[in-house]
Amino acid sequence: MEVSWEMSVTDSINTIYLLFSAYLVFVMQLGFAMLCAGSVRAKNATNIMLTNVVDAVVGSLSYYLFGFAFAFGDGTNSNPFIGTQFFALKDIPTSSYDYTFFLYQWAFAIAVAGITSGSIAERTQFTSYLVFSFFLSGFVYPIVAHWVWSSSGWLNHGSSGLFGSGAIDFAGSGVVHLVGGIAGLWGSFIEGPRVGRFDAFGKPVAMRGHSAALVVLGTFLLWFGWFGFNPGSFDKILVSYPNATDQGNWTAIGRTAVTTALSGSTAGIVTLFSRRLLVGHWNALDVCNGVLGGFVAITSGCSVVEPWAAIICGFIAAWVLIGLNILALKLNFDDPLEATQLHGGCGAWGLIFTGLFAKEEFVIQAYGPGVSGVARPYGLFLSGGWGLLGAQVVELLAIVGWVSVTMGPLFYTLHKLRILRISVDDEIAGLDISSHGGYAYTTHQEDTGPRFYSEYVRIQNE
Amino acid sequence: MEVSWEMSVTDSINTIYLLFSAYLVFVMQLGFAMLCAGSVRAKNATNIMLTNVVDAVVGSLSYYLFGFAFAFGDGTNSNPFIGTQFFALKDIPTSSYDYTFFLYQWAFAIAVAGITSGSIAERTQFTSYLVFSFFLSGFVYPIVAHWVWSSSGWLNHGSSGLFGSGAIDFAGSGVVHLVGGIAGLWGSFIEGPRVGRFDAFGKPVAMRGHSAALVVLGTFLLWFGWFGFNPGSFDKILVSYPNATDQGNWTAIGRTAVTTALSGSTAGIVTLFSRRLLVGHWNALDVCNGVLGGFVAITSGCSVVEPWAAIICGFIAAWVLIGLNILALKLNFDDPLEATQLHGGCGAWGLIFTGLFAKEEFVIQAYGPGVSGVARPYGLFLSGGWGLLGAQVVELLAIVGWVSVTMGPLFYTLHKLRILRISVDDEIAGLDISSHGGYAYTTHQEDTGPRFYSEYVRIQNE
Amino acid sequence: MEVSWEMSVTDSINTIYLLFSAYLVFVMQLGFAMLCAGSVRAKNATNIMLTNVVDAVVGSLSYYLFGFAFAFGDGTNSNPFIGTQFFALKDIPTSSYDYTFFLYQWAFAIAVAGITSGSIAERTQFTSYLVFSFFLSGFVYPIVAHWVWSSSGWLNHGSSGLFGSGAIDFAGSGVVHLVGGIAGLWGSFIEGPRVGRFDAFGKPVAMRGHSAALVVLGTFLLWFGWFGFNPGSFDKILVSYPNATDQGNWTAIGRTAVTTALSGSTAGIVTLFSRRLLVGHWNALDVCNGVLGGFVAITSGCSVVEPWAAIICGFIAAWVLIGLNILALKLNFDDPLEATQLHGGCGAWGLIFTGLFAKEEFVIQAYGPGVSGVARPYGLFLSGGWGLLGAQVVELLAIVGWVSVTMGPLFYTLHKLRILRISVDDEIAGLDISSHGGYAYTTHQEDTGPRFYSEYVRIQNE
Repeated sequence: MEVSWEMSVTDSINTIYLLFSAYLVFVMQLGFAMLCAGSVRAKNATNIMLTNVVDAVVGSLSYYLFGFAFAFGDGTNSNPFIGTQFFALKDIPTSSYDYTFFLYQWAFAIAVAGITSGSIAERTQFTSYLVFSFFLSGFVYPIVAHWVWSSSGWLNHGSSGLFGSGAIDFAGSGVVHLVGGIAGLWGSFIEGPRVGRFDAFGKPVAMRGHSAALVVLGTFLLWFGWFGFNPGSFDKILVSYPNATDQGNWTAIGRTAVTTALSGSTAGIVTLFSRRLLVGHWNALDVCNGVLGGFVAITSGCSVVEPWAAIICGFIAAWVLIGLNILALKLNFDDPLEATQLHGGCGAWGLIFTGLFAKEEFVIQAYGPGVSGVARPYGLFLSGGWGLLGAQVVELLAIVGWVSVTMGPLFYTLHKLRILRISVDDEIAGLDISSHGGYAYTTHQEDTGPRFYSEYVRIQNE
Repeated sequence: MEVSWEMSVTDSINTIYLLFSAYLVFVMQLGFAMLCAGSVRAKNATNIMLTNVVDAVVGSLSYYLFGFAFAFGDGTNSNPFIGTQFFALKDIPTSSYDYTFFLYQWAFAIAVAGITSGSIAERTQFTSYLVFSFFLSGFVYPIVAHWVWSSSGWLNHGSSGLFGSGAIDFAGSGVVHLVGGIAGLWGSFIEGPRVGRFDAFGKPVAMRGHSAALVVLGTFLLWFGWFGFNPGSFDKILVSYPNATDQGNWTAIGRTAVTTALSGSTAGIVTLFSRRLLVGHWNALDVCNGVLGGFVAITSGCSVVEPWAAIICGFIAAWVLIGLNILALKLNFDDPLEATQLHGGCGAWGLIFTGLFAKEEFVIQAYGPGVSGVARPYGLFLSGGWGLLGAQVVELLAIVGWVSVTMGPLFYTLHKLRILRISVDDEIAGLDISSHGGYAYTTHQEDTGPRFYSEYVRIQNE
Repeated sequence: MEVSWEMSVTDSINTIYLLFSAYLVFVMQLGFAMLCAGSVRAKNATNIMLTNVVDAVVGSLSYYLFGFAFAFGDGTNSNPFIGTQFFALKDIPTSSYDYTFFLYQWAFAIAVAGITSGSIAERTQFTSYLVFSFFLSGFVYPIVAHWVWSSSGWLNHGSSGLFGSGAIDFAGSGVVHLVGGIAGLWGSFIEGPRVGRFDAFGKPVAMRGHSAALVVLGTFLLWFGWFGFNPGSFDKILVSYPNATDQGNWTAIGRTAVTTALSGSTAGIVTLFSRRLLVGHWNALDVCNGVLGGFVAITSGCSVVEPWAAIICGFIAAWVLIGLNILALKLNFDDPLEATQLHGGCGAWGLIFTGLFAKEEFVIQAYGPGVSGVARPYGLFLSGGWGLLGAQVVELLAIVGWVSVTMGPLFYTLHKLRILRISVDDEIAGLDISSHGGYAYTTHQEDTGPRFYSEYVRIQNE
């Protein structure tokens, strides 16, 4: 059969859109690498950058071989809990999924481990990191993705959705960020704080990251990438809406980019001023984390809320982050990148937020009319009933439970095998020199060696 | 009414084009942050990066609430000086403006303050920066955008355009760069030079930026972003030209990317060789600024000139920048990023250049046939008459006047209130330690602290 | 003639696709700049970043004036060896080539010199660099591009292709990377090793790059850019395949992105573990180079092989790189960026790989049915005969020969004129201080100068 021109045009447009969105999401991996590197001490910078590279390269193979199959393999004998086909991309492309969709989802999968890498930074053995990264992005995460995003998943919004609704987690406040955050919670909890992070009286000792430039670079790159993460999750741009004049996914996509920017910006502003009041100076790194917290929170509802609601989302996300950070210090909980608080806390808030502020019109446009004959639930505060909020809470609890029963035991086993944490001596010396062959930075310019060739030759001959 | 397939395809294509262009323009904010950080001393790096983050997050809210309305709110009771609707995106999307257009314009707005941040770097109080950034990107800049880019603006190219033409400032040599540069001129002039920049005899003392790597990173990112800035300003790609074989905006867009690259490259080459002759070495930072000067200059006429003319544009832009930099030193004017000279000077030259070299065919394709029955003016050197050049000069003077009467008094007021400039002690210590809680870089790797845990415990117990 | 709507849509879609791919390829120039900077010693960082900026700006002019003409000027009096029209973009756009195509090819041209810059890093006079860069990207490279990619080229896959096939070098493992690598081989060989790289007994002395952060940044940016390099080389996305359901270039483009990611990832993993076994630690920089080696190798066959074959490609690419690096040390060959081994070695392997694993269906979709009545050769291991492999070997030998007879004498002449290598004293001092006016990094934050203004004034008055 010849492909019709209309179909070719549609496929080309949608492929361009999803492909370049996938490229942007991939940039987030670079963003995490830079953010993490800048937020740790120089002696561990190479280590954490390598973990982010490893997330990408190991994730490519594991997601190709089975991760994608677990997440989206919903064929004839599909089930609500795990996908069962498309291993090693067998039978791809189908009419539903092609290579570009795989690439887009791959970029999401590698991001999850990148989130958690921050929680266990500066003290984890590299072999343990490999095990954890492989297990998280290849198994734990894809299962959750299947639940929520695969049409046969038990949390999916399809016609038989939970509470007549199913969960709305558009780009993954829960599926991606909460998963990464809870994994980080267990890893960080089981490993315990870095040496010297809390003094003998339990009071925190500042351990500043070594480069604000890398933190800002990483934050902006993550922002850039989030434009692929959130608006890109529509997958297709060429979808028109019934009963609307001149509107379709192309309208909603622009709005999604706007809600994303507004939520992150609001959270950044709130953090700027509140930290000024609390700590007494204008802290750039706090603002960066605040912005990211706003993005994490809006990720679930970005496509189904009005711009004004996004401002509320970001406003509260900032306080969630600030509050959890204070709590973490009180509990002597040490997550070097605040990943548990940021991705876990703001991710959880994002799921709730969607249950409160999702707008009926946008929900129907993005998710369809729902169970036939029954009104689709939407945001509680917009009179949409308790159905959606209920489904959101169920997703939240399900993710916390699933990640805890998988990643908790994994980290505990590695801990018991004594391969999770590095030795104290290595930790004080730094991972770069103990495991990676040398420091991240070498200063040659003020060479203390021979200044002129004659000297050099003389030394060589001695 | 159902959306027709043709309309869906058209909207999808144009949205993809403008959306990804907006993302690229957003990258310029990161480019400015890195360029500025690298060009200042390490002790102020966090400060200037934070200002660039703040431009983005504060700009999001202010442009959403009223900036966009001032610029493009040209509804039924529109006027040539200021827009009056679409506050907080009310009534958006319309048939003319949708969310993606807002996002694209937002990315422009935040860039303006980013330009000026360089002029007042290393000596400005952070609270003053907040005031200035909010006022510039939320009010001063949107008004100018309204004049030139809104169809009801008095400098617009519409059917009743000034001198039968209206100004041609395609992507904003004037609207963006000259505005930012003149604001910087006033800020920098009123603040005065950095402590130690000129000695007791008025001779300049070199104050080198702290990282060439960040400068080069920023420059390339700005180049990357400029591909969104200039070609993206067509807004729509799917527009065919009458009386042309197989040509449309898609042709002109490619040509615009080429003129942009050629102008910047030529300016870079000229700077490379001329600085070699003037100063005696091959200076990387000068080349970076030269390239940016070429981009700033071509930004006005990028869509309406031939590639060969772009080479002339860049050639002269380099000399404008070199000349103004020499003049600035003579006048003991201290703009740490050369933003006044670069964005102001080359931006002004760009407006003039367009009046000299705009090609009739391209002007009509990009701006329409003009007043009916009257030939549209175009480049003076291409026999297009004085009309266009006149309109360009009027835009230049109007911008210099408007920015001077708004930003001059603002900076002066802040100065008189003694909240504009930091104290000399703080300036010598650096903004990072005095206002932002610590330096941008912390070297941990050559820890002078305890090397082994036993030592550590001993110290703890002492 | 009015442009039909169908034609406008087609042109718009294809332009968006190629334009944004061109932007991504341009990012590779930034990637090279950061990778190179991080891989050299701090005292030469400015120099190598400037060379990468210069590649871009000089390449713009030379490729505009004649490089593009040499490569793609295949008009009425075309010949198989060199193009002869389109100088300074005269007669562009044509029905085959427009400005966007030029921009895409320009981004390729500037990358070639960027590759070689690594081989001759830390010891080359800047004037020589200018000569070499101009000659390589303006003449040597465009000729090879003409041979392989212009329809009139003698290695092209057209209807009269060599061995009934022509060479398949989709995005340029040979045309770009092997050319850059062989040029680097000659440059590096003629210049000889850096001072101190091998001791008096010929044993290598480690010369570590100064910043792992820049290396990782550069690697990820190159990965990002490679998504433009490989999938972008389809030029057009809106091309449907006959006899296929719902497939066209859009399908193959997604698959090409996947094969690219898989090859690079596999090479990275292999390098990670093999270097761990060989050297004893987990080396981040080796992994980065391994990933890049996998990309270089897949660049030739990315569009015509299955994902599983891409894994084989990357697996062997890693060993090619590891083996050549060991060999280089044995031979006292010093290429600071391993560019000869990486781009030359893995590029050569990529050409061979395509001759072994190209799949018939994909070859016909991407390159057409070939000579009428004769079966098109494809991968030897897939029973496609020796024709394709033969053409690949001929391309490999032709490139090695052509680059050797042009760049070898050029470097030798510069060497004899004593303008190729800097003096030993300058080399020990570093290029930045000797040729570029100062070091790349200046530490101001621990100012040893006056701490307070009173002190400052006192000093001024003394």
